[in-house]
Amino acid sequence: MLIEQIHEPADLKKLSVKQLKQLCEELRAEIINVVSEHGGHLASNLGVVELTVAIHYVFDAPEDKLVLDVGHQSYAHKLLTGRFQAFHTLRQKGGISGFPQQEESEYDAFTAGHASTAISAALGLARTRDIMRGEYDVVTVVGDGALTGGMCYEALNDAGQSNTRMIVILNDNDMSIAPNVGALSRYLTRLRQSKGYIAVKHGVRDRLEKHPKVGAPLYRLLYRFRNTIRSIFVDDKFFSALGFKYIGPVDGHDLRSLIRVLKRARSYDEPQLIHVVTQKGRGYEPAEEHPVTFHGVAPFYVESGSRKQAGETTSGKIVARQLVEMADNDIRICAVTAAMPMGTGMDVFKQAHPERCFDVGIAEEHAVTMAAGMASQGMKPYVAVYSTFLQRAYDQIMVDVCRNALPVTFLIDRAGLVGEDGETHQGVFDLSYLRSIPGMVIAAPRDVRDLKKLVEISQDYDGPMAIRYPKSCEDMGPGIQSQQRVSIGEWELLSDGRDVMIFAVGRMVPLAMQAAIELMGKGVSAGVVDARFVAPMDADMLRRKAVGVRLVVTVEENVLAGGFGEGVLEALSDMGVSTPAMTLGVPDRFIAQASVAEQTLECGLDAYSIARRIRERLAKIGEAGT
Amino acid sequence: MLIEQIHEPADLKKLSVKQLKQLCEELRAEIINVVSEHGGHLASNLGVVELTVAIHYVFDAPEDKLVLDVGHQSYAHKLLTGRFQAFHTLRQKGGISGFPQQEESEYDAFTAGHASTAISAALGLARTRDIMRGEYDVVTVVGDGALTGGMCYEALNDAGQSNTRMIVILNDNDMSIAPNVGALSRYLTRLRQSKGYIAVKHGVRDRLEKHPKVGAPLYRLLYRFRNTIRSIFVDDKFFSALGFKYIGPVDGHDLRSLIRVLKRARSYDEPQLIHVVTQKGRGYEPAEEHPVTFHGVAPFYVESGSRKQAGETTSGKIVARQLVEMADNDIRICAVTAAMPMGTGMDVFKQAHPERCFDVGIAEEHAVTMAAGMASQGMKPYVAVYSTFLQRAYDQIMVDVCRNALPVTFLIDRAGLVGEDGETHQGVFDLSYLRSIPGMVIAAPRDVRDLKKLVEISQDYDGPMAIRYPKSCEDMGPGIQSQQRVSIGEWELLSDGRDVMIFAVGRMVPLAMQAAIELMGKGVSAGVVDARFVAPMDADMLRRKAVGVRLVVTVEENVLAGGFGEGVLEALSDMGVSTPAMTLGVPDRFIAQASVAEQTLECGLDAYSIARRIRERLAKIGEAGT
Repeated sequence: MLIEQIHEPADLKKLSVKQLKQLCEELRAEIINVVSEHGGHLASNLGVVELTVAIHYVFDAPEDKLVLDVGHQSYAHKLLTGRFQAFHTLRQKGGISGFPQQEESEYDAFTAGHASTAISAALGLARTRDIMRGEYDVVTVVGDGALTGGMCYEALNDAGQSNTRMIVILNDNDMSIAPNVGALSRYLTRLRQSKGYIAVKHGVRDRLEKHPKVGAPLYRLLYRFRNTIRSIFVDDKFFSALGFKYIGPVDGHDLRSLIRVLKRARSYDEPQLIHVVTQKGRGYEPAEEHPVTFHGVAPFYVESGSRKQAGETTSGKIVARQLVEMADNDIRICAVTAAMPMGTGMDVFKQAHPERCFDVGIAEEHAVTMAAGMASQGMKPYVAVYSTFLQRAYDQIMVDVCRNALPVTFLIDRAGLVGEDGETHQGVFDLSYLRSIPGMVIAAPRDVRDLKKLVEISQDYDGPMAIRYPKSCEDMGPGIQSQQRVSIGEWELLSDGRDVMIFAVGRMVPLAMQAAIELMGKGVSAGVVDARFVAPMDADMLRRKAVGVRLVVTVEENVLAGGFGEGVLEALSDMGVSTPAMTLGVPDRFIAQASVAEQTLECGLDAYSIARRIRERLAKIGEAGT
Repeated sequence: MLIEQIHEPADLKKLSVKQLKQLCEELRAEIINVVSEHGGHLASNLGVVELTVAIHYVFDAPEDKLVLDVGHQSYAHKLLTGRFQAFHTLRQKGGISGFPQQEESEYDAFTAGHASTAISAALGLARTRDIMRGEYDVVTVVGDGALTGGMCYEALNDAGQSNTRMIVILNDNDMSIAPNVGALSRYLTRLRQSKGYIAVKHGVRDRLEKHPKVGAPLYRLLYRFRNTIRSIFVDDKFFSALGFKYIGPVDGHDLRSLIRVLKRARSYDEPQLIHVVTQKGRGYEPAEEHPVTFHGVAPFYVESGSRKQAGETTSGKIVARQLVEMADNDIRICAVTAAMPMGTGMDVFKQAHPERCFDVGIAEEHAVTMAAGMASQGMKPYVAVYSTFLQRAYDQIMVDVCRNALPVTFLIDRAGLVGEDGETHQGVFDLSYLRSIPGMVIAAPRDVRDLKKLVEISQDYDGPMAIRYPKSCEDMGPGIQSQQRVSIGEWELLSDGRDVMIFAVGRMVPLAMQAAIELMGKGVSAGVVDARFVAPMDADMLRRKAVGVRLVVTVEENVLAGGFGEGVLEALSDMGVSTPAMTLGVPDRFIAQASVAEQTLECGLDAYSIARRIRERLAKIGEAGT
């Protein structure tokens, strides 16, 4: 196997193009194999195998710096840069990260995770080189999906003017996670279809090569012809307006062309954008045919592409169905999502009400302000975004939505600990950043019934509201029969306690119930309140239940700084309640990849740890009291 | 005076073009007059007088919706929409806002404040119209400065694809607040200079008209000639690539042309971008000559343009000088700012080290990640941005800087209450949003000496750090002799107290000292600690000083939710300290325009209020104790 002989990119340079092609197939097999075992990002990684090989063949990493956007295209790069042996630990606790990480390898020039940042980071690298009088090249690979994010444009605009030498490779697979949106995407399509470029239909070459007698000469002819006319590059104006030399389009699966173009690009002394056309899922039929499904996947059978385990029901689907029902009779209701129609479940809404569903691309800022614009004219928009990505729109939520008290509802998916995506994707900050914004109602359901109820009551609430929940319904607790209807700002007393009262949020409610049972076994009487609304708080319930016990405990799946617990402490202090209190939540550090269960344990938020920590604190109070 | 007869835009339609021109002069005079009295945004507002008149002449507001970006171009609009009588209250407590506000007038279709949001909001309005089967037009005016913000691009990309009928007017004055940056700005210049457009040099017509016999016929000829060839519009590719019909460039001071182009635009059924060229400061010589100085101004003498009061020393200047000194001997130090070189003082740094100063345009997200890129390669970047605008980069600060523990220092100007800019510009959230991010050091100086010290120690600190301070040094307190050197995470005991310990941050420290004196007069012994570092906290000092007094008080110029006070409560709770505590800060609502002193009073953060609130709480504790 060639792949075993590649310990660093320099080893590539010894191989012939034929060998490089073989290496590409080996890389593909390895990626498919490992992802099929543990899950991961498949389709996008399969698309950039030749491109990655060509980059490392032409450039000299780690002296030359390679900055990968997001990292959904980093697997081949990892395999070529000394991480083949460890690759089977991909996305597992202590294993290889699914994203580029500086601390993992010197070949990862910049740590990534969120989309559209690479050109900015690369410009920072290039400017550092120029200040420090370095000579190296800075190369960045950005997907056409990421290009819908405004940051890319900000960076191109800045780099183009300052005329900084850098190479931006646009990996155009005509998709972000879902099929791409935006006018620029159409523009790229026009470039692809323009005279300078003949798209080699997938598989044509392979099929030709299966008939060597006829196929090979025919292919060589086709190939030569293609190369001749491709030198007439397309006349782009968009990227040139931004000060970039445009080169392309180039067939992203044609190693020879890629190598030639990259070599040429290396000789230029200005900002360049190379437009490379790739196919998502390339080389694995199920992924080629279903690139959206195979963007991020759970473990699957390589043979068939079918999942090893039945799919869980996602919270997004539940929310979307509820929303469809509401929208059937309420024309004000519309849905906005930022390139995540499937992930957030909003594809379900789109099917029912296509004219009221807006996928704006990887553009969270625009999504929020656009929704604010709609709400200002009487609409009732629901913005469905992952917790970690909504961080991008903090300012817009504040200035455009909340400062105007507009009835935009945020459906915050992937809240809490998220598992394998690790540090950059944790949804454990939203309670803090949303709580700092005046006028925002913040709710978290403890189970599916609750989730539906919250979506339901948002319909008549005439102000900004956020509902945050984990990806999987199964990550929320088993249903607990409710004693009361859900209404804004009201908490629910689930059980009473003489020694301890636990105020828990969302997924932590059932865990707190378990902890209470655990405590009961140790002779501690602990009650549980479902603090369904993090803002506004149920001050009345808080006072009534906090007075008279020995310890108040808060439990949340959010960092402690600025979170629910601190809000409770402030409310207690404000009311003059002096019961000792303890706040449990995610510690104030970035939580690395592992399973959700492992991360919960690491944060001491499993039922057993909660019970143990409460007993320890009670013991301390007891000592102090004696 | 014509201006007195305009009660609503419909009144404009009765006027001849000659009268409209006269009206423009009256509008200019009124704007200059009011701004010279109270300060405000001058140059940008003078530039759009004809454009605003033409828009209201052609369209039918409030049925047609006019969305103004930022609002630095809203004064003429306000004067034409029933706010002439109240206009003298501009930017004062209870008066006319300096920004468009839906609650102020039905003619303000969307409330604004931060740049680059208008196209997103307008698209929301246009989509609402289409869903609700409305007929009205949606018109938005965006400066070319705002166009450097990525949100604009996200919105154009979305609108262009969905082919939604809307009119974007690009007000191109070749500046944002400072002269514009970015490749697109150069592109716009090329469009302006291309064959289709003859720029009428400023004053040419005026001078021609001063010589009626020669001038008038010559001008008419020139004018007719210009109109003929201007119909050959420029062949733009940039905006067309984004799906917009490009119209222009149009002379923004030529009423007839503007009216004709807008009327024509109204008949099209697609997204359009009209490129209007204006001159910042138009019609007021000092502002024409110094558009940067006259962007936002303090009260001045109309005759000379000189300021009525001597300029205060800004914190930014102090910081910049300190930074220059450090950079003289440290090549790693560089400065990044987002279109605010003067406001943040970084123009001083630019003069000294031009090759290490980067103004990236109104692009805070890019600024932060670019700085992270530099820091990842050994540079020591200082990102100088206003507190309210840094909100835009919350995600980048977290994911690109802090998750990678990179040594980027944030120089956060305009922190705390900001006065006349009101709700949308308050810098009272940064302590909360920064505190939620793991690993961020957050510091606030109490005086100028302290500010310098903090910048100084940042040089050797190898991680993310934020220093937040008010615009004016005079807004910070008088210097208080320090007993110790400043080091990270260490607080300073300024005076000891038997009854109360006040932990204060930044500008609140001297106010807390005054409050302590006030309390002493009432028989309460209160001590003060300068809690210079909001993160990490000086847990040791906190414990020592919190134990044994009757009340712990925190005072900060930040919202309570997630702020310093809550952090102190959590630390106390964590340490098992049971002293009653009170958190003082900005209440959790948006604080409207007024002077900084009025706002401080409104928040109960003046020395007298602090003392009063402490005594009230002590009284309550006393009651509870008995």
